[in-house]
Amino acid sequence: MISVAQALEQILATITPLGPERVSLLDALGRVAAEDIHARRAIPPRDNSAMDGYALRWQDTQGATPESPVVLDVVEDIPAGKVPEKTVVAGTAARIMTGAPIPDGADAVMKMEETAKDGQKVRIFAAAAAGMDIRRAGEDVQPGERVVGKGEVLTPSRIGMLASVGRAFVEVHQRPVVAVLATGDELVEIDEAFLAEGKIVSSNSYSLAAQVLDCGASPLQIGIARDTREDLIAKFKAARRADIILSSGGVSVGDYDLVKDIMKEVGNRMQFWRVAMRPGKPLAFGALEGVPLFGLPGNPVSSMVSFEQFVRPALLKMMGHRNLFRRIIRARLGEDIRKNAGARNFLRARVEFRDGRYHVVTTGEQGSGILKSMVLANGLIVLPEAVTHARTGDEVMVQLIDGSLERMESPEYLKD
Amino acid sequence: MISVAQALEQILATITPLGPERVSLLDALGRVAAEDIHARRAIPPRDNSAMDGYALRWQDTQGATPESPVVLDVVEDIPAGKVPEKTVVAGTAARIMTGAPIPDGADAVMKMEETAKDGQKVRIFAAAAAGMDIRRAGEDVQPGERVVGKGEVLTPSRIGMLASVGRAFVEVHQRPVVAVLATGDELVEIDEAFLAEGKIVSSNSYSLAAQVLDCGASPLQIGIARDTREDLIAKFKAARRADIILSSGGVSVGDYDLVKDIMKEVGNRMQFWRVAMRPGKPLAFGALEGVPLFGLPGNPVSSMVSFEQFVRPALLKMMGHRNLFRRIIRARLGEDIRKNAGARNFLRARVEFRDGRYHVVTTGEQGSGILKSMVLANGLIVLPEAVTHARTGDEVMVQLIDGSLERMESPEYLKD
Repeated sequence: MISVAQALEQILATITPLGPERVSLLDALGRVAAEDIHARRAIPPRDNSAMDGYALRWQDTQGATPESPVVLDVVEDIPAGKVPEKTVVAGTAARIMTGAPIPDGADAVMKMEETAKDGQKVRIFAAAAAGMDIRRAGEDVQPGERVVGKGEVLTPSRIGMLASVGRAFVEVHQRPVVAVLATGDELVEIDEAFLAEGKIVSSNSYSLAAQVLDCGASPLQIGIARDTREDLIAKFKAARRADIILSSGGVSVGDYDLVKDIMKEVGNRMQFWRVAMRPGKPLAFGALEGVPLFGLPGNPVSSMVSFEQFVRPALLKMMGHRNLFRRIIRARLGEDIRKNAGARNFLRARVEFRDGRYHVVTTGEQGSGILKSMVLANGLIVLPEAVTHARTGDEVMVQLIDGSLERMESPEYLKD
Repeated sequence: MISVAQALEQILATITPLGPERVSLLDALGRVAAEDIHARRAIPPRDNSAMDGYALRWQDTQGATPESPVVLDVVEDIPAGKVPEKTVVAGTAARIMTGAPIPDGADAVMKMEETAKDGQKVRIFAAAAAGMDIRRAGEDVQPGERVVGKGEVLTPSRIGMLASVGRAFVEVHQRPVVAVLATGDELVEIDEAFLAEGKIVSSNSYSLAAQVLDCGASPLQIGIARDTREDLIAKFKAARRADIILSSGGVSVGDYDLVKDIMKEVGNRMQFWRVAMRPGKPLAFGALEGVPLFGLPGNPVSSMVSFEQFVRPALLKMMGHRNLFRRIIRARLGEDIRKNAGARNFLRARVEFRDGRYHVVTTGEQGSGILKSMVLANGLIVLPEAVTHARTGDEVMVQLIDGSLERMESPEYLKD
């Protein structure tokens, strides 16, 4: 029996990030940069106006008030995108729009609201200060500055930044293809569900594929392998071109569990673990001709929980992520829970934020066949090996397993 | 001048969820159910074994111990997926695998570890209790029970549940197509960036499209409209087939801002607001021939912040979500901030969780052209209208704008 921490450590030690690929900018959203990206020029590229108004020399405006305005000659009109042609000398100004380049000679911008146009002249009602309302070249980014670092996740603002510095493509870590294979003669496909007495739908094929997608990886659905040597070998062979293989079922003690034998035969370094956790005790991990292979338990909840603990961090590592683990919060327990010492328990639970703190209760029956309690859960209460009793009101660790706490029903930030 | 809350309320009042579409199960991940889904049969469909072992009659095993085992005749072998053919009568048992249907007559399962096979007989080393290690038909889901409710987000466990009840397709709310249009003669496309003196790349086209994708909607990139009547009208016409239109730039006071005039002309009920917020004061909202249209500010940061406050909740509402708003946390401020009364401020900031609480600092220069401070931000400090001074150590609201706090670098949940 090994601990969850030992299993995780051994798994992650064998996983390395996939190599880079070049993708177009929008396709890079959510991916991890595989290169440092430096600005090839300044942003903004030139001094430009922060306001619609007049580019002028600040000393010309000293003492200007609404009652005694300064009057300047307007020498040019500079809409955004135009390159200025004239130089602003003493006693002159150029009409300028937000974002337009500052003309030579000008050292301040007076916003429209403090001016009045008067034919080819403009009256200025306020004194400017040096540099006022000018955005300096390079004030956002200097030439050569690193704007995205290797290992950073490409968020919408980073996508915008890369566009700013003229990058239409970006190198990101490749996305793993993840073969998903269910095993067992008791399983049928969704569209066979009503044909087969005593059979159950292979729901793991779908929940695991959805978990793969949710990590940002690509599932490759191999389907169901029958409990025969031939079919198992054929299906594992079909899975071999993936970057990682997940099979569910066939790793516990039963003698119809051919999977273990087949894995031993086709793989070269499979390890069959009994992990000190509940649910999810049986777990196999190794490689099939060099492709990492997880043999997950067949119970719907066990396979999802094992995915969360072991497969998700591995996939995130392959995709170049640095932060591989779900967030843990501390929450006040709303019930008594008893467990045996020895195994780390992951109990399906519902977390709520209320009165300034997190509260958590289990979502009911914790049998590993009860998918309903997983459906209702947004977190897993993590009870360490040594714990035998957690009491109402105790503060417990909860691993958040979906993003539901990230969205709120009411715009609380608009209250005062 | 209207408040952020008023603008949001007026916008959301005009937005209704899109109609349903049928998508295949895996494509439904992250989408919102547009129907209630009821189980058409029980899960599990029959009583089945929770263990690899022997199905037997519990009364036969009373008094059994390792020293004085009970011996039973094995009448059948029931691997998973097989329908039992024999009835278990007194003195007999059936070898059974996990998940296999319980044969008639049996009322308990004894796990393999407590048994020893002996030819056609089996020795049982422990006493069973009635119902032991039998999973009852319907213990997860009863026939007719609602397994997914209208308005619920389809998580991996719900996808698994729908597979279990035999649903290969599911009705979800449609995904909006969102036209993204930048305006301004100062803008060039990414691949023109080095051609054009005094021009800047239309980064908003990419940051906004990425924000649209991040909400789960589909961007339709219309590109850059020049500041001419003809081009603006042509581009707005091209955008019309979307479900919602975002334009950036052209809604402030400058007289080259033709966009406002064109919007008035082609639209039928545009409202031009000065919203009491910073950044993002100018905002237009209305409809172009019935299609909701947002005129966002042209500054890169302002357009992203306005998207966060107004467009994202609108898109989520169109997609059928109930929780439309980013999560707010309370964090201890690490610096002094002064602002003018009157506008709600959204300051780019970095939140960390440390020593049991959130801490927040701004990411530097808050000018609306400084995209770098947005790149570094994982939240926006929200300072209400009336506030003029927030002090180091104050508790402030922070709107979390990316999922970065949801991932951790170390598996804290494996510590005791």
